[in-house]
Amino acid sequence: MFSESLLISPAIAGAVGLIVALFLYLRVKAQPTGNETMNRIATYVREGAMAFLVREYKVLFVYAIVVGAALWFALGGIAAGSFILGAFLSLLAGFFGMKAATYANVRTSQAASTGSKAAALLVALDGGAVMGLSVAGLGLIGLGVIYMMFKDQTEVVGTILHSFAVGASSIALFARIGGGIYTKAADVGADIAGKVIENIPEDDPRNPGVIADNVGDNVGDVAGMGADIYESMVAAIVSAMAIALTIPAEKLANLVTNSSDANATRMAGITLPLLLSTLGMVISIIVIFAARAFKNGKPATVLRNALIFPPIVLTIAAYVVLPMFGISQAVTVALAAGAFGGALIGLITEYYTAARPIRLVAEAALTGAGTGVIRGLAVGMESTAIPMLIVVIAAYIADRALGLYGIAISAVGMLAGTAVVMTVDAYGPIADNAGGISEMSGLGKNVRDITDELDAVGNTTAAIGKGFAIGSAILTVLALFSAFNMEVNHVRLKAGLAAMSLDLTSSGVLIGILIGAILPFLVGSTTMTAVGKAAQKIVVEIARQFKEIPGLREGKAEPQPAKIVDIATQAALWEMILPGMIAILAPVAVGFILGPQALAGLLAGGLAVGATLSLYMANAGGAWDNAKKFIEKGGLPGHPKGSDAHKAAVVGDTVGDPFKDTSGPGIAILIKVMSVVSLLIAQLIATIGG
Amino acid sequence: MFSESLLISPAIAGAVGLIVALFLYLRVKAQPTGNETMNRIATYVREGAMAFLVREYKVLFVYAIVVGAALWFALGGIAAGSFILGAFLSLLAGFFGMKAATYANVRTSQAASTGSKAAALLVALDGGAVMGLSVAGLGLIGLGVIYMMFKDQTEVVGTILHSFAVGASSIALFARIGGGIYTKAADVGADIAGKVIENIPEDDPRNPGVIADNVGDNVGDVAGMGADIYESMVAAIVSAMAIALTIPAEKLANLVTNSSDANATRMAGITLPLLLSTLGMVISIIVIFAARAFKNGKPATVLRNALIFPPIVLTIAAYVVLPMFGISQAVTVALAAGAFGGALIGLITEYYTAARPIRLVAEAALTGAGTGVIRGLAVGMESTAIPMLIVVIAAYIADRALGLYGIAISAVGMLAGTAVVMTVDAYGPIADNAGGISEMSGLGKNVRDITDELDAVGNTTAAIGKGFAIGSAILTVLALFSAFNMEVNHVRLKAGLAAMSLDLTSSGVLIGILIGAILPFLVGSTTMTAVGKAAQKIVVEIARQFKEIPGLREGKAEPQPAKIVDIATQAALWEMILPGMIAILAPVAVGFILGPQALAGLLAGGLAVGATLSLYMANAGGAWDNAKKFIEKGGLPGHPKGSDAHKAAVVGDTVGDPFKDTSGPGIAILIKVMSVVSLLIAQLIATIGG
Repeated sequence: MFSESLLISPAIAGAVGLIVALFLYLRVKAQPTGNETMNRIATYVREGAMAFLVREYKVLFVYAIVVGAALWFALGGIAAGSFILGAFLSLLAGFFGMKAATYANVRTSQAASTGSKAAALLVALDGGAVMGLSVAGLGLIGLGVIYMMFKDQTEVVGTILHSFAVGASSIALFARIGGGIYTKAADVGADIAGKVIENIPEDDPRNPGVIADNVGDNVGDVAGMGADIYESMVAAIVSAMAIALTIPAEKLANLVTNSSDANATRMAGITLPLLLSTLGMVISIIVIFAARAFKNGKPATVLRNALIFPPIVLTIAAYVVLPMFGISQAVTVALAAGAFGGALIGLITEYYTAARPIRLVAEAALTGAGTGVIRGLAVGMESTAIPMLIVVIAAYIADRALGLYGIAISAVGMLAGTAVVMTVDAYGPIADNAGGISEMSGLGKNVRDITDELDAVGNTTAAIGKGFAIGSAILTVLALFSAFNMEVNHVRLKAGLAAMSLDLTSSGVLIGILIGAILPFLVGSTTMTAVGKAAQKIVVEIARQFKEIPGLREGKAEPQPAKIVDIATQAALWEMILPGMIAILAPVAVGFILGPQALAGLLAGGLAVGATLSLYMANAGGAWDNAKKFIEKGGLPGHPKGSDAHKAAVVGDTVGDPFKDTSGPGIAILIKVMSVVSLLIAQLIATIGG
Repeated sequence: MFSESLLISPAIAGAVGLIVALFLYLRVKAQPTGNETMNRIATYVREGAMAFLVREYKVLFVYAIVVGAALWFALGGIAAGSFILGAFLSLLAGFFGMKAATYANVRTSQAASTGSKAAALLVALDGGAVMGLSVAGLGLIGLGVIYMMFKDQTEVVGTILHSFAVGASSIALFARIGGGIYTKAADVGADIAGKVIENIPEDDPRNPGVIADNVGDNVGDVAGMGADIYESMVAAIVSAMAIALTIPAEKLANLVTNSSDANATRMAGITLPLLLSTLGMVISIIVIFAARAFKNGKPATVLRNALIFPPIVLTIAAYVVLPMFGISQAVTVALAAGAFGGALIGLITEYYTAARPIRLVAEAALTGAGTGVIRGLAVGMESTAIPMLIVVIAAYIADRALGLYGIAISAVGMLAGTAVVMTVDAYGPIADNAGGISEMSGLGKNVRDITDELDAVGNTTAAIGKGFAIGSAILTVLALFSAFNMEVNHVRLKAGLAAMSLDLTSSGVLIGILIGAILPFLVGSTTMTAVGKAAQKIVVEIARQFKEIPGLREGKAEPQPAKIVDIATQAALWEMILPGMIAILAPVAVGFILGPQALAGLLAGGLAVGATLSLYMANAGGAWDNAKKFIEKGGLPGHPKGSDAHKAAVVGDTVGDPFKDTSGPGIAILIKVMSVVSLLIAQLIATIGG
């Protein structure tokens, strides 16, 4: 069994991760920054991104204070503090990552301008790794430290962990949705204005929306995504710990091979998720350096393998290490189910957003935007099936091996490579930005070819990363759902009440399921509307600038990008509130009004709809995006960029932007937020209703 | 309590309905048919529609024989016969209705050409009423007769009723999906080719796709919709009867006011759904004649009131009549919950497809097709919330009043006006066809104005009708779901097994929920793909004709509509098989492999996703369609028909076509088919697994 001293290892691994991140950050900053134009543009982007972050953090500060006060009142000061810590570390990771990304973009562009693809890849990768290591490192430090501090206070440690997860989750929700609205409003607005209204090329420096588009890549795909992945890791670990805290001892018995001490077994169950994630962190650091060493390889292969290896290496490591501590190989089985499941989902996602389906969507665009959109929606719908079945099989195997606790462990296994997943995810927008800066600065075609290749790889890895995120979300929600029910019954039994009936035929459960089914659609609707409205405003403003600024069209006058940045910022901060409130208040309202039975139904209905809807939206968006790129690369002979078929594909891409980067990921977080909020309030509502 | 002699009344009311239908059919046929061109076009349409029906019926005949044989083997000859009868009556209703509709279309056009809006409205309404009365009449006769024949064989009457419902449901599924693919492939194909590729007006006689488009209105919106509504009525009645057959006697006790004879109470519970539907039929016939009397009123108001009144009148009638038979007013409460709920859902649907949301979608199209599509999708997503909440509240009230049986009764209440709903629904495509015939025959603008107004009303009433259909589907599935669980436990208890555990935390249930969540998306994907592919083929063929037939563009040569009809027919018959098989085989496979627990989960997951997804698709489609019409009517000053904004709105309309008329309704039937199939196989799988 684990010795006490091992408990310090998560914090140490996290600290090592942060030190490596600092080293890479300094390395990025030391790279050459290119000419004056490049620096001017990069400064615009960096300042726009930081300005957004500051304004967003002010809003989130108010949110954290209000919810923190409510938690202090309802659950005590330590819970409130833990919530604040969970939220603060998320914001800190986002800040570190974005600093690095907004230095790395222009340096990647400069490295590409020297003609070295390897050098450019390395800068972008290092910039991404700062984010990746910060996210995983801060998560491990936070959870590791609060668990060490409160592990002996068995009555409250659960609540403290749940509070930390609620802090992480709700910041993730706002950052993901706010960032998603910003980035896609700017992207859609700039694209429509640039391509359709004014007929100027993408990333043309005359288009005042282009700066906002590049800012958006950072606030959405770096800071927003970072908060998302930080939350995924935290929620997976906390759900496993929460189950181990409340599950009847006999159900954990086969966790160990040779002990009959129920208490020691329970302690092992509680610490295992942290220790496995620590092992995952160590493996991730190695993989990041290995990927750097392969910098001369094909970028697509290097990054794809970086994503898929860590969970699988972790499984092998666990197989070797766990017996030394008397832990049963059943844990390895559950881990492997998650690890291989995650890799498979990643590959399936890649198929649906890269292979034959893309060609079909592109061909459908030959007969117009309508048929192109129809085909993309159909691809997205189809793409839900296999990932869901993989999750079902993984959950089934994990459940067989180790019961409900096994399902949580499989989620931990799927997310073992968090640092790498985030590294690769943050690499994408850096490469994208580098392309934008190269274009706007008028660097040559050779430079653009390098940044284009790096960017294209980013799209595929982003799709794989999204597959991991949604797959792990489903497993995590299954685990949180079980933890919620155990917590409710734990309280009810102590209060002398019968265990809650969760029979599928009881009207409370059915009502909850139907209400839960609505919520993902409402979050989808509010976020799509937000992007659409803000994009329309941006188009109008860009048209105004072209009309009212003399000489802009001829390239003799400067555009006013600050106005576009302002529209996008306003829209993002204002429009993230409604979907965020739906996610947080719906479970609270249903829990306190209808009771825990209906709330359990709500979580189940929300899971069924949210899991499929987010897969559908994410993958349809990816398919349209890549179908457009497929046409641009000459995939449909006789229909080049600018042809009717390409214009039709652009319509699909426009619809797909909020699908894949705002609503789809937002819905995946929604179901996790609802689950952790339910878990947190479980003890307060346990005795309401039947 | 009811006397035995009352049991003959459903068959009598059904027969009266058929006689009235015959009378109206003869009246329609006796109307003048217009000039030679009109007749030629109408004959094309009629022959195309009948040719499709014959080929479709051949496929369905094979299906019915195969499934009938399987049922004979598994459940005996009577069950097989009942299945065949349920299927046959569906086909018969479709045949009657389509005959009438394809005579009424040209006669409506001719009536409009005399300048009389009232006369035109009446012909279209009479044509629709033939379908409405056939559907409700044959349903009542079928169920009434088989119940009378087998009511004393208490061990098998349940299975016989379930078999009848499976016959009705599976034909509905195939007819709805096949018809939906046909009509939307032809519609989308003809529209794209006509508007985008060849720049000729809608319904232009040179466009060879126009005949197929008009054929499609009949096979999709008349025959397909007819099978759908016939199934809704049958499933609602059967679910209520099935619950009354197996529910523990004490749970039915408050059904009656003054009897303690459990057997008599159960008999009352079994016959009540049939008798209430009979009352609904009588009211519907009266409302149809009342609507005819108001023919000089505003068509929109006349038809809207015709839809909303019958359920409400039924509630009042029940309030007066039920006490005479010693039936508790709790039944009236449950009926009212369904009746008012249905009317409210209809009005909400009308709002989302007619009022402010339409304007927002149209305005979003000002900045391009992309933003227009985004806004329409957002409207569709938002529109799921209130109808779902209304159903939840209706189900809650009905459950409080009368338990699970009450939920089934509320579905019966919502569908009390089946004959009228179907009349109004079939009116739509008749008016649409009349418009097409007028345009193709070169009748003047005055004529087209009348047919346009009649057609526009049809769009709104179609939306209301869809609201009823989906709302009642959710209630019916809730009832069928309960009936399934009772049937399973009935068998398990007899076999000496414990009742099935449907605890939401058991892995079987959770696995079932996740699998069930996939299926609506798969049906959505396969049907969207089918429409997209077939439409692309049609566009290619139309382009070929314009290229290869000399003089076609100048109007000097005839197009070849038969080729388009053939493409659409082939696609519909071939592509309906996969989604149909998914719907029927998924519950069978899960039931026999994983057992009843997972199957119950599958039904719950399918309900959560299917209900919201079908509302989303149906309403988004309606919103786009009407946003396009809004622009055509001058809703956006400065952006007339043919402007960029209008073209952008047409893209939304194209996407919306399969959304609202193929996939959305197909998914609503899917969840009912899965439920009735589960109910039918319940006794065979009851003892599998835990």
